[in-house]
Amino acid sequence: MKIFAYGIREDEQNALNEWMTNHPEVEVDYTDKLLDPQTAQLAAGADAVDVYQQLAYTPETLTALHELGINKMSLRNVGTDNIDFETARRYDFSISNVAVYSPNAIAEHAAIQGARVLRQTKPLDRKIENHDLRWAPTIGREVRMQTFGIIGTGHIGHVLIDILQGFGAKVIGYDVYRNPELEAEGIYVDTLDELYAQSDVISLHVPSLPENYHMINKETIAKMKDDVVLINVSRGDLMDIDAVIDGLDSGKIFGLAMDVYEKEVGLFNKDWSHETFPDEKIADLIARENVLVTPHTAFYTTKAVYEMVTQSMDASLAFIKGDETANEVKY
Amino acid sequence: MKIFAYGIREDEQNALNEWMTNHPEVEVDYTDKLLDPQTAQLAAGADAVDVYQQLAYTPETLTALHELGINKMSLRNVGTDNIDFETARRYDFSISNVAVYSPNAIAEHAAIQGARVLRQTKPLDRKIENHDLRWAPTIGREVRMQTFGIIGTGHIGHVLIDILQGFGAKVIGYDVYRNPELEAEGIYVDTLDELYAQSDVISLHVPSLPENYHMINKETIAKMKDDVVLINVSRGDLMDIDAVIDGLDSGKIFGLAMDVYEKEVGLFNKDWSHETFPDEKIADLIARENVLVTPHTAFYTTKAVYEMVTQSMDASLAFIKGDETANEVKY
Repeated sequence: MKIFAYGIREDEQNALNEWMTNHPEVEVDYTDKLLDPQTAQLAAGADAVDVYQQLAYTPETLTALHELGINKMSLRNVGTDNIDFETARRYDFSISNVAVYSPNAIAEHAAIQGARVLRQTKPLDRKIENHDLRWAPTIGREVRMQTFGIIGTGHIGHVLIDILQGFGAKVIGYDVYRNPELEAEGIYVDTLDELYAQSDVISLHVPSLPENYHMINKETIAKMKDDVVLINVSRGDLMDIDAVIDGLDSGKIFGLAMDVYEKEVGLFNKDWSHETFPDEKIADLIARENVLVTPHTAFYTTKAVYEMVTQSMDASLAFIKGDETANEVKY
Repeated sequence: MKIFAYGIREDEQNALNEWMTNHPEVEVDYTDKLLDPQTAQLAAGADAVDVYQQLAYTPETLTALHELGINKMSLRNVGTDNIDFETARRYDFSISNVAVYSPNAIAEHAAIQGARVLRQTKPLDRKIENHDLRWAPTIGREVRMQTFGIIGTGHIGHVLIDILQGFGAKVIGYDVYRNPELEAEGIYVDTLDELYAQSDVISLHVPSLPENYHMINKETIAKMKDDVVLINVSRGDLMDIDAVIDGLDSGKIFGLAMDVYEKEVGLFNKDWSHETFPDEKIADLIARENVLVTPHTAFYTTKAVYEMVTQSMDASLAFIKGDETANEVKY
């Protein structure tokens, strides 16, 4: 049994080595190159490939694998929209992805970045780097003293609630699908308007659906408390960023932590330090003292990477053995 | 009844205004100036003064107050070592301080800064400011996946444990005085050596006593796990900073969050941005990507300032009315 892995980054090697140690019966080889019709040849002799790339899995790429006798492919990430499923179907490909790697990674990021906005760590860090060691006026607001409004109480929202309750903060929640355990705690309010009116900090944990498009907009911001803090680690299109910028300019919004942006594709996970930065709004937000922009890195932890590598390798092995895997993509 | 307050900063005015609204029977006046023999005259007609300053309360200053008929003085902070108690005794001064303003402020700071070291926010922030929006290699470690060793489980240590347990982290503790509630949870280890051997993150919450002097030193660091994270928001002299720097240089220590420094007096809470910075070790630590230095600001929250203002004004009022106050300094 042999699995060939593509696009292996340095931060994935520990997890891959551990998997190899735990599976001495499986031959594993890998490259840092991405999978394309040329590099497909590197997998010759393998029974399955393990991959993670934005680069498309084209008909040519899948055909190259097919010609090597390979029709098992495990993605280390969740997104499958770059796969040519017509070709995959023709060659009877078994495909898996990793849908859940670490909800905690994202919930922790929301909590930490939100707390940082409250404690004003960005202007404080800048003062300190500049050797200005005065306290004032960079005063912090305590997490414990805030009311947090959590919109969406699925897995990530629930983990965030646990974290915030550990801080001793008051938490209220809104969801069309209520979690019975949280319902029993009495955290739910009946309307988003109630949540907007009562929350000192608002964090979004709902999917990108038409009814959630730009749910944070001029009208909803007007319903919020003065000095509200906004956190978005979910989907960029939940926020009308122009309305949020207006709220920051007017002082209505105390600060913002954002890990996602409506126009992030092609912008995030690239090095623009030697090029003209293509998005003035994000450049402006990055420069603000009360805004923390991260380029969709909330998920990016050693635990998440471990899960992505381990679950995908497990799925490849299950395919080879003819076993079931919950990570199989039905298409 | 009149209270005159000295050294009122902008961040204290909200709390002072709220106290005045709640006590319409008391006349309150204030200045941003510090109390000295000259400014003492501003308090003429007052029954008590409310103060917070590093500047000494000299015999001359206390005599000036005495000559105005004032012998009631409430400090908004804890430290009383800048008071000339001999003169205070001669003039029968009633003095109060604020010993506990917000343990949560300090525990939250330890949790947030420790989490930031784990998530590598400092190098990530720098990359983003420089418009390098790539994820790798700035990968985070999740709070939940760490074992935290808490040395000292008094009020602040206990709050920190609650916060970390909210994250889902494993917590172990060491204290010569065990908290029964935490003992029942089974968090205690019997020796510091056990704590050093098991902890991914170590946070110090013990007082500055001779037996704790430089408890973090070359020998104890050698007993710790590789990639340990250290947090010190308690007292600077708990750490041999040279041994810690060696540990950072060798890579043994993954990162450090420090809010205190053995030689911080005269260095912290000053603006050195236009002067030669006098401490090369701190300059070096501030510049490191895996070190977060804050200049004894862990306490500095709106809640803490509210408590400092409110408790001190309450104590002044109690002195004027002849009531008891738990904040009275017995000397």
